Amino acid sequence: MHDAHIVGAGMTRFGVHESTLPDLFADAALPALDDAGVDADAVDALYLGNAMSGQIEGESHLAPTLASHLGLAGVPCQRFEDACATSSNAFKHAVRAVEAGQHDVVLVGGVERCSPETGKGTGAMTRIFASAAHGTYERPTGLTFPGVFALLTKRHMHEHGTTEEQLAEVAVKNHRHGSLNPRAHFGKETTVEEVLDGPVVADPFHLHDCCPFSDGAAAVVVTSAEVASELDAEPVSVSGVGHATDIVPIADKAHPSVTQSARDAAGQAYEAAGVGPDDVDVVELHDCFTGAEVLATEALGLIEDGQGGPAAAAGRTSLGGEIPVNPSGGLKAKGHPIGATGVAQLVELTEQLRGDAGDRQVEAADVGLAHNLGGDAATTLVTVLEAAR
Amino acid sequence: MHDAHIVGAGMTRFGVHESTLPDLFADAALPALDDAGVDADAVDALYLGNAMSGQIEGESHLAPTLASHLGLAGVPCQRFEDACATSSNAFKHAVRAVEAGQHDVVLVGGVERCSPETGKGTGAMTRIFASAAHGTYERPTGLTFPGVFALLTKRHMHEHGTTEEQLAEVAVKNHRHGSLNPRAHFGKETTVEEVLDGPVVADPFHLHDCCPFSDGAAAVVVTSAEVASELDAEPVSVSGVGHATDIVPIADKAHPSVTQSARDAAGQAYEAAGVGPDDVDVVELHDCFTGAEVLATEALGLIEDGQGGPAAAAGRTSLGGEIPVNPSGGLKAKGHPIGATGVAQLVELTEQLRGDAGDRQVEAADVGLAHNLGGDAATTLVTVLEAAR
Repeated sequence: MHDAHIVGAGMTRFGVHESTLPDLFADAALPALDDAGVDADAVDALYLGNAMSGQIEGESHLAPTLASHLGLAGVPCQRFEDACATSSNAFKHAVRAVEAGQHDVVLVGGVERCSPETGKGTGAMTRIFASAAHGTYERPTGLTFPGVFALLTKRHMHEHGTTEEQLAEVAVKNHRHGSLNPRAHFGKETTVEEVLDGPVVADPFHLHDCCPFSDGAAAVVVTSAEVASELDAEPVSVSGVGHATDIVPIADKAHPSVTQSARDAAGQAYEAAGVGPDDVDVVELHDCFTGAEVLATEALGLIEDGQGGPAAAAGRTSLGGEIPVNPSGGLKAKGHPIGATGVAQLVELTEQLRGDAGDRQVEAADVGLAHNLGGDAATTLVTVLEAAR
Repeated sequence: MHDAHIVGAGMTRFGVHESTLPDLFADAALPALDDAGVDADAVDALYLGNAMSGQIEGESHLAPTLASHLGLAGVPCQRFEDACATSSNAFKHAVRAVEAGQHDVVLVGGVERCSPETGKGTGAMTRIFASAAHGTYERPTGLTFPGVFALLTKRHMHEHGTTEEQLAEVAVKNHRHGSLNPRAHFGKETTVEEVLDGPVVADPFHLHDCCPFSDGAAAVVVTSAEVASELDAEPVSVSGVGHATDIVPIADKAHPSVTQSARDAAGQAYEAAGVGPDDVDVVELHDCFTGAEVLATEALGLIEDGQGGPAAAAGRTSLGGEIPVNPSGGLKAKGHPIGATGVAQLVELTEQLRGDAGDRQVEAADVGLAHNLGGDAATTLVTVLEAAR
């Protein structure tokens, strides 16, 4: 088996873009290829994540169109859709193909245009996102994703005493981190008071507990260790990828606040990498809502079960804290262009592990972990990366 | 590397169904598992093809929902979308995962509900399908897929003298084959006169040159040779899978009627299998329009370039002819539930190679080939299967 490495990374600013999907993707993919020092001719496959361009802008069969736009026509192309975990799954399959010797140089990326400014508006985008909830048991009740994660978080509050103030602390932290990230959708800080004074979207979530709908793209170049050694780029090692699902309807989950698929995927990734939660130096995780971050820090073993809220409030997950979570600002402040989010987490970790993260650099970052979740916390991919320097 | 085998196959009738997507998929997946003699507990991944459920019925994150419905929750699930080549690409990745030892038992399937009776009507479905054409250069002109393939076919007529009568002969053949297939959308035969008397959809195509919009599902179980040897099911060997793309816009293709991606994918599949076109006994290919079958028989090397039309008219590609093409009735008569089509071709070949195809059985069928195309003839997957008995 070959070892897989990330040898190049690129992403657009997340926010509002007027570019077409091919142009937006190119603004991430070409910098990733440049960063790797790889010509388009050397790429032998495109693994793409895009969740909802069919519904948002009537666009399908997108991967070959993007390949044509980048001068890659001819290589095998594939689009993955696994709700918000879309491009992490594209990445996993690219890694597996490189590990197995099926491909040597793979361009992996994600792209989505889902800002309300793209033309649909917040209401329509909320309905489109809700297509990832369960079609038989949930959508007919009117449940959309703020409600899904509100239910999971309410359960956690009931079981562990987590408070709205603690949730707000997650937003404050991620906005603070995002203010250090020039590519973040939101560049401004917020306060616990501002969060709690905001309108309620779905109890317990106020407006600033929720991530935005963003436009954006992210890309990485994955190669074998052999190819990586021939390049000038500083590689990052892909030490472990875990992928699990949980039963979809929330009402069927044995312990909703436990997010079992995250625990299963994390277990796989830790085992493959030969590391544990204590070895992780920097984390990018799926904070689509502040409550989701609380649940994830526990599911990943970074914080003791039930202590995710107090840990955030105590600064344990801040830059400079015990285990910095979402130095990029996370989905909350960096933004959430669905199909691009998973790979964007890997772009941030690549920069962190290379020591290139500027004002938001985590000190002595040698092991990074990404956690990307799809649907009713039903799909989770966890990736462990390690500095190869 | 492990050898991958198909050990179970199942599919629904193609046509009009009132079932939900999970129920429809179960009607293919559970028979496939039964055919393999494999319990749901033994399945360690779901690879799903679904092209357009987002646009058709507002459904995404479908793979984990189907897994939950089948009692497979927990296993890694992924949905592929590559236009009409969707489930062949899911199959390719399942095969690669088994070959690499990443999975032992994979359920691969496709499902789609796109009959006009599902609620959208023919006009809306045509527009939804057109989302797979190029969004910058083609869709704004009003081009839909009858037009895409009419352009390719007109070019072939110009270059090689292919006639509308020869195209009609393809429809007559595939309707005749479909009349022998109890799972076909269309069970009745047609005549050259009836085809030519039909309304023109996009010159040179009359109504009966075009495949229908269908509902349906298909599934196969893929295992390693080691697992296959422990089962009672008769395995079919996956000898080669090729996958290539071409530049997407028709206007940019060097030789539109040559369908280069099919030639590239076929070359890869033949090389991997160690066989050539003369070794193939039975073919399921992507006849979304009669002209597409003419181009594909040439691109696959089954018929000399330029002779696809006369070959169909002379019966060379009929059951009982030199190389039987689409004994199932093909997309033309069996139907085309987009995301299910690629795997349905493999289900037909599995039955043919096992000698279980009833009235449409090809004699001494030991080597089968499937050709599945997506978008502007831009994605093609070619799979070679061989009887393992």
